[in-house]
Amino acid sequence: MSKKIKKIVCLGGGTGVSVVLSGLKKYPLDLTAIVTMFDSGGSSGKLKKELGILPLGDVRQCLVALSEKNNLTNLFHYRFGKGTLKGHNFGNLLIAAAMGATGSLDKAIEKISKILDIKGKVIPVTLEKSDIVAILKNNKKIKEEEKIINCNYLSQVGIKKLFLEPKVKANPKAISAIKKSDLIIIVPGKFYTSITPIFLVKGISEAVRASQSKKVFVCNLMTQVGNTDGFSIENFLTILEKYLGKDVIDYIIFNTGKLSAKQVKEVRKVFPKADFIKYDKRLLKMENFIGADVIDRQIQRLDPADILVKGANKRTMILHDSKKLAKILLNLCRQ
Amino acid sequence: MSKKIKKIVCLGGGTGVSVVLSGLKKYPLDLTAIVTMFDSGGSSGKLKKELGILPLGDVRQCLVALSEKNNLTNLFHYRFGKGTLKGHNFGNLLIAAAMGATGSLDKAIEKISKILDIKGKVIPVTLEKSDIVAILKNNKKIKEEEKIINCNYLSQVGIKKLFLEPKVKANPKAISAIKKSDLIIIVPGKFYTSITPIFLVKGISEAVRASQSKKVFVCNLMTQVGNTDGFSIENFLTILEKYLGKDVIDYIIFNTGKLSAKQVKEVRKVFPKADFIKYDKRLLKMENFIGADVIDRQIQRLDPADILVKGANKRTMILHDSKKLAKILLNLCRQ
Repeated sequence: MSKKIKKIVCLGGGTGVSVVLSGLKKYPLDLTAIVTMFDSGGSSGKLKKELGILPLGDVRQCLVALSEKNNLTNLFHYRFGKGTLKGHNFGNLLIAAAMGATGSLDKAIEKISKILDIKGKVIPVTLEKSDIVAILKNNKKIKEEEKIINCNYLSQVGIKKLFLEPKVKANPKAISAIKKSDLIIIVPGKFYTSITPIFLVKGISEAVRASQSKKVFVCNLMTQVGNTDGFSIENFLTILEKYLGKDVIDYIIFNTGKLSAKQVKEVRKVFPKADFIKYDKRLLKMENFIGADVIDRQIQRLDPADILVKGANKRTMILHDSKKLAKILLNLCRQ
Repeated sequence: MSKKIKKIVCLGGGTGVSVVLSGLKKYPLDLTAIVTMFDSGGSSGKLKKELGILPLGDVRQCLVALSEKNNLTNLFHYRFGKGTLKGHNFGNLLIAAAMGATGSLDKAIEKISKILDIKGKVIPVTLEKSDIVAILKNNKKIKEEEKIINCNYLSQVGIKKLFLEPKVKANPKAISAIKKSDLIIIVPGKFYTSITPIFLVKGISEAVRASQSKKVFVCNLMTQVGNTDGFSIENFLTILEKYLGKDVIDYIIFNTGKLSAKQVKEVRKVFPKADFIKYDKRLLKMENFIGADVIDRQIQRLDPADILVKGANKRTMILHDSKKLAKILLNLCRQ
């Protein structure tokens, strides 16, 4: 094992990147989050429309995940409950103000990274505005992240094609981080609206494919109602490979742990049709499939503030255990 | 001269307190700003109405004045230019978020004081909401800070009575700071809407009168059109004494410096009728009147963002020289 500090790059959305990074940041590693930028709902969506800026929610979550908790970090998730500010997230407003003051999202992130004294880098996958478009197998076109998430027949009809409108180029900083990395982690998250779109950004798939680093995909724990109903590990992988390329992923980490009947009941109260991702037991014997109990037993309660903004996505209630995940990822890194 | 660190209390609004404190904070002093809370216009007024909270603009300015400049302080004055956030000041949003997260303005100020690492204390004069009311000599009633500022015939008609509606009690922390102080400074500012109202808060005048400390009034440099046209030093003092009590003020600092013809022209472009405060030359020979050149030759340009909010007050263009003022105040403190 080389003594050089390993460079780890995470690709994904706010929640998934946060879980993975909060486990990894305790180790001496060089961490970079390359963040999906196609949010259209909630406070981010509102700011995107009103100020004409990129959606900020995922960047905000990643900044907090990489910061040492301090007095300001605590305020990042605060949402205003009244007036024209209703539903706005303080962290988003801070990034928006910094963008206004510095003139760009890149510089704003730099400024806030200093304020929060963050360990690592947060890089928007693109600096251009775009929306996700899904063409279903019945030829129906659904545009915008929020509408795709809320489409309850997506998995039933099936997606023919997913693309970005307009086409956008990768942030050069993202390409450079991918090139130099030792380990690339595709984190769990909303599959069609956070994860896959990253590989639709011009230059990203190519850079990942060209990179000498190990590539790991951390598969979701549960299905996302309407979007990935009935999905198995292989289903996720097949779709990912469609956009990223065949045999690019070196390892797939999937969960084998279970929740108690009581916990399952609690989750089903909010997501009646959500299910654990199925896996074929034969995967456990395959070298590049890493099955492990990586589930966090702490059920995430919905923040009451999350329902303040029309269109704020329902957050997942079940997350990966960041410590367990970090150990597996570190092992891969050291091999 | 005692070696004990002197306790200095400033009473006033955001701009005046900022000028005085930014000069004093370079010395080893115990500094407290007791801040006027009756703003009704601009971003503060908007938040006051929409969120039902106290107006925050003056508190924000004082927090920045007492902080060491850092990455976050720079953002405090940023104003949003578009959408529903238009005209909102980032610093105000931070304080409002901290109020929401902590449950009170007191705790929010404590939190932000830590974030900004401020040197000293910022204390709202009251924690209850109220508005300023002026009854003119023609019996017309004008309510709210913004309307009083914008009333262009106030000095012509004259004010019969100034009061707060509803009546509000002083913040106990303000009373305690006044009691323990060695020097109380009444800073320059909008006379009827920032300065005088402080002494209309129940308990403040009594506490100032009862305090053993020296009391200094730093008189304005220029008249405020519509409000204090034609005012002399004595006019300000007479009105102040009406609410604070006779012979309470120990020293009056007034300006004897002049601007160049070019500078005067520049100010008159924005405030055609504004004038320098007149003073009787005999004052220069009186011990408790301290005439000095305390004018800052750097003309303050109007921040273009200031015009974004309907009702945002025109800021003064001429400020006191904070270094010169600090030297005079320190001398008084040491006597």
